[in-house]
Amino acid sequence: MAAQGRLQGVFTPNMVPLDSQGAIDEQGLRDYVDWLIQRGVHGLYPNGSTGEFTRFYAPEQRRITSSWTRPPAAFPSSPGRRRPTFARRWPPASTIDLGVRAVAIVSPYYYRLSPDNVYAYFREIGRNTPVDVTLYNMPMFASPIDVPTIQRLSEECERIVAIKDSSGDLPQMMRMIEAVRPNRPDFSFLTGWDAVLMPMLLMGCDGGTNAASGIVPELTRKLYDATTGGRIEEARNLQYLVQRIFDVLLLGADFPEACRVGIRLRGLAIGPGRQPLSERHQAKLAELEPVLRKLLQESGIACGQPAGGRLTPQEIGQVVASVLQTLRSRGAV
Amino acid sequence: MAAQGRLQGVFTPNMVPLDSQGAIDEQGLRDYVDWLIQRGVHGLYPNGSTGEFTRFYAPEQRRITSSWTRPPAAFPSSPGRRRPTFARRWPPASTIDLGVRAVAIVSPYYYRLSPDNVYAYFREIGRNTPVDVTLYNMPMFASPIDVPTIQRLSEECERIVAIKDSSGDLPQMMRMIEAVRPNRPDFSFLTGWDAVLMPMLLMGCDGGTNAASGIVPELTRKLYDATTGGRIEEARNLQYLVQRIFDVLLLGADFPEACRVGIRLRGLAIGPGRQPLSERHQAKLAELEPVLRKLLQESGIACGQPAGGRLTPQEIGQVVASVLQTLRSRGAV
Amino acid sequence: MAAQGRLQGVFTPNMVPLDSQGAIDEQGLRDYVDWLIQRGVHGLYPNGSTGEFTRFYAPEQRRITSSWTRPPAAFPSSPGRRRPTFARRWPPASTIDLGVRAVAIVSPYYYRLSPDNVYAYFREIGRNTPVDVTLYNMPMFASPIDVPTIQRLSEECERIVAIKDSSGDLPQMMRMIEAVRPNRPDFSFLTGWDAVLMPMLLMGCDGGTNAASGIVPELTRKLYDATTGGRIEEARNLQYLVQRIFDVLLLGADFPEACRVGIRLRGLAIGPGRQPLSERHQAKLAELEPVLRKLLQESGIACGQPAGGRLTPQEIGQVVASVLQTLRSRGAV
Amino acid sequence: MAAQGRLQGVFTPNMVPLDSQGAIDEQGLRDYVDWLIQRGVHGLYPNGSTGEFTRFYAPEQRRITSSWTRPPAAFPSSPGRRRPTFARRWPPASTIDLGVRAVAIVSPYYYRLSPDNVYAYFREIGRNTPVDVTLYNMPMFASPIDVPTIQRLSEECERIVAIKDSSGDLPQMMRMIEAVRPNRPDFSFLTGWDAVLMPMLLMGCDGGTNAASGIVPELTRKLYDATTGGRIEEARNLQYLVQRIFDVLLLGADFPEACRVGIRLRGLAIGPGRQPLSERHQAKLAELEPVLRKLLQESGIACGQPAGGRLTPQEIGQVVASVLQTLRSRGAV
Repeated sequence: MAAQGRLQGVFTPNMVPLDSQGAIDEQGLRDYVDWLIQRGVHGLYPNGSTGEFTRFYAPEQRRITSSWTRPPAAFPSSPGRRRPTFARRWPPASTIDLGVRAVAIVSPYYYRLSPDNVYAYFREIGRNTPVDVTLYNMPMFASPIDVPTIQRLSEECERIVAIKDSSGDLPQMMRMIEAVRPNRPDFSFLTGWDAVLMPMLLMGCDGGTNAASGIVPELTRKLYDATTGGRIEEARNLQYLVQRIFDVLLLGADFPEACRVGIRLRGLAIGPGRQPLSERHQAKLAELEPVLRKLLQESGIACGQPAGGRLTPQEIGQVVASVLQTLRSRGAV
Repeated sequence: MAAQGRLQGVFTPNMVPLDSQGAIDEQGLRDYVDWLIQRGVHGLYPNGSTGEFTRFYAPEQRRITSSWTRPPAAFPSSPGRRRPTFARRWPPASTIDLGVRAVAIVSPYYYRLSPDNVYAYFREIGRNTPVDVTLYNMPMFASPIDVPTIQRLSEECERIVAIKDSSGDLPQMMRMIEAVRPNRPDFSFLTGWDAVLMPMLLMGCDGGTNAASGIVPELTRKLYDATTGGRIEEARNLQYLVQRIFDVLLLGADFPEACRVGIRLRGLAIGPGRQPLSERHQAKLAELEPVLRKLLQESGIACGQPAGGRLTPQEIGQVVASVLQTLRSRGAV
Repeated sequence: MAAQGRLQGVFTPNMVPLDSQGAIDEQGLRDYVDWLIQRGVHGLYPNGSTGEFTRFYAPEQRRITSSWTRPPAAFPSSPGRRRPTFARRWPPASTIDLGVRAVAIVSPYYYRLSPDNVYAYFREIGRNTPVDVTLYNMPMFASPIDVPTIQRLSEECERIVAIKDSSGDLPQMMRMIEAVRPNRPDFSFLTGWDAVLMPMLLMGCDGGTNAASGIVPELTRKLYDATTGGRIEEARNLQYLVQRIFDVLLLGADFPEACRVGIRLRGLAIGPGRQPLSERHQAKLAELEPVLRKLLQESGIACGQPAGGRLTPQEIGQVVASVLQTLRSRGAV
Repeated sequence: MAAQGRLQGVFTPNMVPLDSQGAIDEQGLRDYVDWLIQRGVHGLYPNGSTGEFTRFYAPEQRRITSSWTRPPAAFPSSPGRRRPTFARRWPPASTIDLGVRAVAIVSPYYYRLSPDNVYAYFREIGRNTPVDVTLYNMPMFASPIDVPTIQRLSEECERIVAIKDSSGDLPQMMRMIEAVRPNRPDFSFLTGWDAVLMPMLLMGCDGGTNAASGIVPELTRKLYDATTGGRIEEARNLQYLVQRIFDVLLLGADFPEACRVGIRLRGLAIGPGRQPLSERHQAKLAELEPVLRKLLQESGIACGQPAGGRLTPQEIGQVVASVLQTLRSRGAV
């Protein structure tokens, strides 16, 4: 496969809006995805760690993906932008009809497997998959995928086409690139560590699947464009802004709770999470809101509707009108 | 609740025999459980880490438990011996009809939650559960349950009745006992770390859920009896034997693959695992067999049918006869 | 060498009293050592981690040891009780005239050496030492000494006679004992982890070098006697008391600052430490005092002069008289 | 102080050549330093981790520094190039006459101090030092220096002028820069992690103290120049070369033994190290030689005299003559 086929760009590991009963808010999800794409992300990476895949049943994971990939889609099909990768456990066969670009498979978790058996696990998938597969290396939470493993898999399995690495370990990423690229110029390297997106891109990565891009998609996109465009000074400044936000998202609360705060700050409906939170943790999250708000403002991003604020009847009217207009423009009503 | 109600003894986190297609071998499972109970374990702890709960779907986990708890049970009901605890995720409600003594809930995994949210998670369960709950602390693989968390939960939730701690951290266990026992004399402390079962019992634990007891149940039981009976010298010698075996089970291969080798050595059908294994890892497991065999012999335990050995026609005849007899005795045929 | 020659008992890793200028308070040190021995410790282990060996120059380390081993000693020579082991770096040759029982050598620190080079380091010492050597395994701070290393060293070097293990890892200690004792019945195993002294002794250890014994020597000695005397119930209760105190010493402040608070609570002069402490840390230490005081009282141990209490003129007179008497007895004035 | 006063460039943490008796080979050291400076390093960082400071006595550490800073120096004084920083423990007062640019102080090691006491330690130094101080953060071996600590120290102590950070943690370095630079534009940030020198410089670092620069000074210098000159493509390629070499130096053997192999490959006399090495480790080092040789060749660097190669009689004559000349020049013969 030619190098131009590589997965490239910013892929958002989107969260999933829930309603007050904890059920998936499908309209909210479509709105959120629409909002992300309008702000420039190149694709979606649903059911990732940020997307809390462990807190949804398999049929829900499927609905999360299909809600915007299946015709009649919520928005017109534009190749390359709409096609998400998604994370779920084997078997991926049942997902092939979802129209995704590739399936992301996280390394085995709970047990910490030896590199050898991580290899055996992915080899079995790589040999049998009917759809392209991207590996997901998340050593903080799952069995690590080491350099010899990724090298062997890339050589033996054509349908394994990319790795998302969320270690944030730059030299390790360089070792991976060196080990794989000579034989597989089509293989893509994506970083999940927003704090080093710029240096990762400069050292040869093809893009990122970045939690912060779910809150500040326009900023992550600008960072990506400035870096790949060689505007180093601009990129550095943007990277510092992104890092500050990422630090709050990652370290401010149990991941990914602070992302929910950020999405709410942008004026989007996201609802409560499924993980029970202690009162103290809820108070902590409340304290993060002004911190994040300030960071967003410093990044030149306007915040939306205050979190938790109720809509006025007038606002509800506007929303209904807007939805009707959207539906009409798509010929749905 | 009175202290005499405490869960006490050796509970085996049993593995699950599979057939050559990877499906649950229910007869094999019943035979295995029968074999364990005949050798003295006090109860079962199905769907634990040794039982590979992450590799079975929820309905399978249910069948694993129900295969010997539901009438007509595979063996006559003898209160206190037959009643397993079992590990699976929330909600436990669907398990209440299984006739179990308690449900074991592992701390949230994949994400590493803060102690505060581990508390919130178990509190929600503790407030709503219709069946007794035992906490499962496995810091190697899941969010740790710390001392203040166990203290608060024991004080606030009556239906939380025990903790299985697989950290192997003796001082931490002592801190837990000190923090909980004054207010909850009925609360039980079980260790999942076979290498220190004797010292744990001496410092106040009530028993163990021990991987080695799935391979050498008679040895673990003897160790338990010698220790609780105050026969220190004998217990020490047994503890050294158990530790050597546990080291192989834990460190010899990716956990719990070596347990399968051990069960096979005892002459039981266990089948292959569901986790794909590399050729190198399979070779490693083959090398463990003589090591384990030697350790069993040094412990005075006879090994059974060589692993992988095929049954003779005569043996098959015996098995069929035995099964028919069992079925007849239960009025099933 | 016969097994009866083994180092056995409680060895105190004593701290070093300093005067207000930070110089070694030699009279204070002799008084402290005398106090420890009167309360039953079997020997001393100066210049250990508790003794802050990294904060004294080599000549000071020598003086710390010689202050009570050289004639005319501050107290009558009683073989077996007075003979300390001590920790310092190679070469030990210069210490042979100090009359010590053995020299304790900590594993190389700062760099984390591979087990192989830890072996090479101790082998060079073991081949050349003119005095018995005890190894000091402190994986929290120094390169770990693993089981194959201790096995090889014990087999190749007769003058290596013991290991002090401060990992607190009970199964690891059992592995060491199994690997060494068959060939070297004279080899001694000492634990530096007070929280598990009882279980370590029950599993085959010969004694301990225990920080808590510098604050509550009578308690550590009672725990040792009860355990080795087979009085399990009594030993368990004492072990819980010791563990609570050890937790404060280890976790209450940067180690070993809380030990200083404890020594002061017993009414002994210990002076300030050499490590600069932040105001916040000093406040923390002040808060530990009542906590430790309460624990001592619960353990049936009376506290002495309040920490930081000023001496009355009368007390100062007594101190001066005592010092003069000591000096006269040595012919110094 | 103005920003132009910042420490900038590549500073080599030079090793120390020893003779066959393990004594410092002062002529070898001067030759090595001369060689480094001729190949473009901006300064020296003697007695660092690569320089094995823990294996030299304090007077030796002094001699290591003074051998090329004191007149009559081995080479003409050229301000800015000759002035080393050096790592040793407090007090630095005795070093002020050595003519160094600054003194590097490593964070307290052996004990792991809390951030608060790391602060207190450096504050005491910062308040009393008569010479500029650079902090040395080496969390792999010593108590970590965290962001609030560096911020407070930079604000309170003018004579603390830089930090060398060997964590390799890029986001952490960015946090430090953000926390310090607004108030202290003269404060310098140096990275000790060669594998990320380029990204560190791009994110705002001022230079590095890089182990690889002791083996391939011309390469590290080119990397520095390309990066600071904005030649991103060239810099990336150089960074990959440096990283491969650094990986061998860091991971190929117990640090810094592989550096000795590299220096020998360049044709320089370095002698044996002081740390005893096992036979197996020596064999491992021998295997590293061809690996490193290949990497050097791929980087366009010619290797010198084969390591371990015997001197010809002619060479021996030259060496003898050189030694005699040196001795005569010092009036020793």
